[in-house]
Amino acid sequence: MRQQFLFSPTLRDVPQGADIPSHQLMLRAGLIRQTASGIYSYLPLGKRVLNHVEKIIREEMNKSGAQEILMPAVQPSELWEESGRLDDYGPELMRLNDRNDREFVLGPTHEEVITSLVRDELNSYKKLPVNLYQIQTKYRDERRPRFGVLRSREFIMKDAYSFNPDTESLAQSYDAMYEAYSNIFRRCGLDFRAVKADAGAIGGKGGTHEFMVLSDVGEDTIAYSDASDYAANLEIADLPDTFSESAVPDEEITSVHTPAARSMDEVSTYLSVMHDQLIKSILFIVDDEPVLFICRGDHELNDVKIGNALDAGTTRLAEEEEIRNLFGTEPGFIGPVGIPENVKVMADYAVKGISSGVCGANETDTHLLHVHPKRDVHIDQYGDFRFVKEGDPAPDGGGTIQFAKGIEVGHVFKLGTKYSEALGAYYLDENGSSRPLLMGCYGIGVSRTLAAVIEQHHDEDGLIWPRSVAPFDLHLLVLNSKQEDQAELGESLYDNLRQQGYDVLFDDRNERAGVKFKDADLVGLPVRITCGKKADEGIVEVKTRETGEMEEVHADRLVDYLNALFR
Amino acid sequence: MRQQFLFSPTLRDVPQGADIPSHQLMLRAGLIRQTASGIYSYLPLGKRVLNHVEKIIREEMNKSGAQEILMPAVQPSELWEESGRLDDYGPELMRLNDRNDREFVLGPTHEEVITSLVRDELNSYKKLPVNLYQIQTKYRDERRPRFGVLRSREFIMKDAYSFNPDTESLAQSYDAMYEAYSNIFRRCGLDFRAVKADAGAIGGKGGTHEFMVLSDVGEDTIAYSDASDYAANLEIADLPDTFSESAVPDEEITSVHTPAARSMDEVSTYLSVMHDQLIKSILFIVDDEPVLFICRGDHELNDVKIGNALDAGTTRLAEEEEIRNLFGTEPGFIGPVGIPENVKVMADYAVKGISSGVCGANETDTHLLHVHPKRDVHIDQYGDFRFVKEGDPAPDGGGTIQFAKGIEVGHVFKLGTKYSEALGAYYLDENGSSRPLLMGCYGIGVSRTLAAVIEQHHDEDGLIWPRSVAPFDLHLLVLNSKQEDQAELGESLYDNLRQQGYDVLFDDRNERAGVKFKDADLVGLPVRITCGKKADEGIVEVKTRETGEMEEVHADRLVDYLNALFR
Repeated sequence: MRQQFLFSPTLRDVPQGADIPSHQLMLRAGLIRQTASGIYSYLPLGKRVLNHVEKIIREEMNKSGAQEILMPAVQPSELWEESGRLDDYGPELMRLNDRNDREFVLGPTHEEVITSLVRDELNSYKKLPVNLYQIQTKYRDERRPRFGVLRSREFIMKDAYSFNPDTESLAQSYDAMYEAYSNIFRRCGLDFRAVKADAGAIGGKGGTHEFMVLSDVGEDTIAYSDASDYAANLEIADLPDTFSESAVPDEEITSVHTPAARSMDEVSTYLSVMHDQLIKSILFIVDDEPVLFICRGDHELNDVKIGNALDAGTTRLAEEEEIRNLFGTEPGFIGPVGIPENVKVMADYAVKGISSGVCGANETDTHLLHVHPKRDVHIDQYGDFRFVKEGDPAPDGGGTIQFAKGIEVGHVFKLGTKYSEALGAYYLDENGSSRPLLMGCYGIGVSRTLAAVIEQHHDEDGLIWPRSVAPFDLHLLVLNSKQEDQAELGESLYDNLRQQGYDVLFDDRNERAGVKFKDADLVGLPVRITCGKKADEGIVEVKTRETGEMEEVHADRLVDYLNALFR
Repeated sequence: MRQQFLFSPTLRDVPQGADIPSHQLMLRAGLIRQTASGIYSYLPLGKRVLNHVEKIIREEMNKSGAQEILMPAVQPSELWEESGRLDDYGPELMRLNDRNDREFVLGPTHEEVITSLVRDELNSYKKLPVNLYQIQTKYRDERRPRFGVLRSREFIMKDAYSFNPDTESLAQSYDAMYEAYSNIFRRCGLDFRAVKADAGAIGGKGGTHEFMVLSDVGEDTIAYSDASDYAANLEIADLPDTFSESAVPDEEITSVHTPAARSMDEVSTYLSVMHDQLIKSILFIVDDEPVLFICRGDHELNDVKIGNALDAGTTRLAEEEEIRNLFGTEPGFIGPVGIPENVKVMADYAVKGISSGVCGANETDTHLLHVHPKRDVHIDQYGDFRFVKEGDPAPDGGGTIQFAKGIEVGHVFKLGTKYSEALGAYYLDENGSSRPLLMGCYGIGVSRTLAAVIEQHHDEDGLIWPRSVAPFDLHLLVLNSKQEDQAELGESLYDNLRQQGYDVLFDDRNERAGVKFKDADLVGLPVRITCGKKADEGIVEVKTRETGEMEEVHADRLVDYLNALFR
């Protein structure tokens, strides 16, 4: 392709409103343009990368035995009513009515459509397992679209859905997807971790992993072990019960006046007590019953873990009024000692290790000293209710926890029977019994993957494409197109290299050398070949974008040289 | 792929509501399933064909120098206001509001988005011409979706838009697309014609061709010459002025009582006059002025031609009340003789040849005989105002016109400056003057193409895929999978043929031979290979689906045999 006619408008300056490198560089190098807030058009360079990523995905999905299909973006609302998600989804679900006033949604995901597609068809164990995937456009009306294609409202996903007769088969499908995803992200040149995650709103229980690309701009925090393979999303990273019961202190409980000291910091300062001897108390209402959760003052209670531990219908923080009614005191001074009998107490494991603790006295401006959990508190249950911190022990016994930021590019779920039961997708097993299909679902953010590759592959001058997804393999420059020997050498190399199977971007524009070099660095193709002053000797300069290494190579040897470089 | 696990639910019976072969067969062979009225999901076999068609399109588009991009389906309504099409489009345009109550449309086409994308960027003649294309999902809320993917509400299109500095460059882009389209449809195995067409609502003047696949189920009529390349959509197929003025008859005009004879048939019967001597008169209101169009009784006036000929703001049929007011008589008895001076008369060329005509007398239940156009009618202008008929002379002087039905699969347009002017897309020419970009637009109905291929390639037993788009190359059958020699030969061929680069669908299901043969015919892969009774001798039966030819081939020679067959 001749660069003169390539539609890739570049920008010299960092565009306003683009806060992260991938967004900035995709705009600057002319990969995308915004059509509306959170809605983008891919220009030729961007679309070329997308095509490469999609090809890799297709190859690995097909290799795994999955079959490609294509479902519509416009979905009948009735299907979402059947699954019960029409109301759950909230304003992120875009809706529209057709000319006959029938309601549709723009699909953010396809569990409903695919389940309705296979019901009545996958009706026998003989036809199972089946894994169906698509690469398709999805919609999510984000409250705050940002970061370019990382969090947009119209985006491309690869989603796959497996239908299995039993948990063993589901585990096999899950593992096959896990492996396919690992291959896909590796081939895209990404440094990633598969981390354990929370199943969240999509529903279903069982295994779930997120594929996280390590990056400072990531919105998720990964907790990983510095000595093992363990990695989990911060919100579900679990903690082992490593605390043994503390010794009972000599002192009895003492009440102390602590005017206006409500927060952990204020109490710690006022009483000169370390945070790890403070007891933090937070009241939840679980299915209309009050439950007091306590943890150490240097820890944070984790509502995802609390929600998962309770297996309750609804769990919410208590209102201030509810606290006053139950404890007869202001919020900020409640504690687990001597509380009403109808309030259950659940304690994080680490509370066990407190020997002489401090907690609210259930009396305004008052705390208790020398609190011992076993002696002084009626604890109904210990459990893992808090967020991990860096330095905590890893749950698999290997090393300690470290944090990293990650961009979620993939997600594998064991859905179970939530959708097959709701939408009536049953099969006959070997004994002729009717059973709901077991399902797994497996997503890759395709447009996100592109942004993630850029986050990991760029420098201050521009993009640095891994060859597997680069829009072109080679950037061929003629430094001064008015010099006949340079222009001639350029033209002959342009023909020759394309014949050898290389994708070549040919810059023979009538621009200054500096402009061409700057553009080449910005666009970031793996190898730059420059026809410059030594063109009359048949010598070109070859620069590897990633390492910056340059070498002079004779045109006759160029193909061999490149073949070796790319092997 | 093993057929046992292929998700391709077949149907024995013709599904209700499927009226044409392609719709029936796509459902029966498990290529598609309906998700909502006019909205379909593509199952694995259908998606494989789609992928092949898209690959052919991509290759030919890239070869033509066009660059692939990807624009969003959700488009801001503001852009459609800028172009003036928001109201013009009517209920076919699907609309929705986002969470902030901003209005969007689901794009039926992308002139607005692409013009807004290139404005400010394609700002110099040096960057032109550029041709950008995408393969993308479009929406049209059809009043009556039908014929499966031939007329659906969510469908896949390839659309391309060229930006040119002058008409010569636009003609080159247009011709390049014309050639690319011809290659694409030829490679898909289609028998098609490129026919001249009307520019219609999309706007713009100049050349436009439709690519029509010849088929009895087509909704368009093609008028073509039996002796030349001439082909045009019925609605615009033009007619030469081949009539010379008729001789003046001896008789003077005579009025005759024709009670209740209004229609051409009634008048013809009542007066025993041939249709080609009748003069049909229809009153139009053109920009608020009355214009009487007349043509021969055996011809039909063509409102597209009338609209194009007038270059008027609005053209419509007169209301009955307007006719009564102007002519003082009932509709059905009006004629061009002795009419009010403010009524212009426009006559189709063929009227010239009438020597002793019959027309309404502008008096209820009365007609005039012996009317001579030159002697008795004040004709303001002759022109080509009627539909062609079979047997009419072709306008290029070669042969006569024949009709055929066609499915429109592609369309190339010269748009001109309609959108660039409306949306402000200007460039600086060589003299530094600002000019609007000239545009062309070029569409292919991708999902339609699939249906069109089937319309031309099927028989009563099922599909007959051209190899270029077939979902698999080979259908390998093991007739009795309990026979060890058959099963073993099948397995070894399955491995071997895939290694040779063939896409193989392997039917080793535990089904009766009859079922397997029926399914194979229905799915219609180009070549069927059967491991049957002679498996112990290493002999298989090879059947070509299209011709039905069968031959016994030894497994050792099979690859050579197939290579020769597919070459």
